[in-house]
Amino acid sequence: MTDSVRIAPRSGIAFELPKGAALTVIDPEGSQVADLLAYSLADVREVISNGRTFDYEETLYLTAGNRLWSNRSNPMLTIIEDSVGRHDFLLTPCSTATFVHFYPDKPVHRGCFGNLAEALRPWGVTEDDIPTAFNVFMNVPVDGTNGRIEVLPPVSKPGDHITLRAEMDCVIGLTACSAYASNGGSFKPIEFQIG
Amino acid sequence: MTDSVRIAPRSGIAFELPKGAALTVIDPEGSQVADLLAYSLADVREVISNGRTFDYEETLYLTAGNRLWSNRSNPMLTIIEDSVGRHDFLLTPCSTATFVHFYPDKPVHRGCFGNLAEALRPWGVTEDDIPTAFNVFMNVPVDGTNGRIEVLPPVSKPGDHITLRAEMDCVIGLTACSAYASNGGSFKPIEFQIG
Repeated sequence: MTDSVRIAPRSGIAFELPKGAALTVIDPEGSQVADLLAYSLADVREVISNGRTFDYEETLYLTAGNRLWSNRSNPMLTIIEDSVGRHDFLLTPCSTATFVHFYPDKPVHRGCFGNLAEALRPWGVTEDDIPTAFNVFMNVPVDGTNGRIEVLPPVSKPGDHITLRAEMDCVIGLTACSAYASNGGSFKPIEFQIG
Repeated sequence: MTDSVRIAPRSGIAFELPKGAALTVIDPEGSQVADLLAYSLADVREVISNGRTFDYEETLYLTAGNRLWSNRSNPMLTIIEDSVGRHDFLLTPCSTATFVHFYPDKPVHRGCFGNLAEALRPWGVTEDDIPTAFNVFMNVPVDGTNGRIEVLPPVSKPGDHITLRAEMDCVIGLTACSAYASNGGSFKPIEFQIG
């Protein structure tokens, strides 16, 4: 297992995760979100897909035992540990456009979308290649009666983690989220380890 | 308004829909699903996004008054009429892989995914450019407590329809669904009009 790497508040990073390696994402201070993307290292047009994952896992709430599937119907990551049990795969990364839309009175930030685009560019990933992210620790309850969704502060406590095993050689994008709503208005770091 | 065009069972079609035009999708026999995709005619890398739509519309159950947004945060289609009120934007088009997964004892079909890929090819759309479709009339209730989803027969009756207005020049992909579960095991046609 590597030492923990710290992702500074409102920033992002990308790195390669070989098949069989395990990525542990840690919320060091609690109640923070990390947007996670995974691309096939062999061809970055293969990428995690919330629709394919919902198809095959038959649930919106993904936790230990569930897999994240690609747009080509291949398993990319398996969740092998999860001390939180609440993550989101419905919403897209916050961006300049979402800041203008949701926080018209606050300073605009390029958000997780801009951070991911810059971090993933060396692997040939463009902005249009960024799909809905797997939003680690993000708390988006769904009302099954009327379909309404809302963004609440994460339930993660300091030190909580999720561990995902790579099912193919991957390029991972990972952020410490920049949006106000997803972390209750506090911008905090994220940490990760590879083992 | 054009005459109705019929999409044969288990097939698909693509066509251009100019900004301001209205597309009416009709379920002529009832309880059938039509997978709908929309791309920007100016650049097909701009495409409908379930994640951006859930972000901005704040609901999973989309009906009259809701808009379908692109991956670039632009509105693409506005639902202006809806006699059913139950559609799905969670699940990806059925494909060879989903037939093998869900119906191992039944003949494999290329599904809506294969039909959409062939129909959209003349506009430069590749298989990897096919995201989660807006699944007209598809009935996928969500259990808000545990996140479980299931695919039930559509509640649409013969002659039910939905009408969407184009907010930009679009290329539309549209199918009469090929999967067993989404239409209760009966393969039926879909019809559409442009006005």
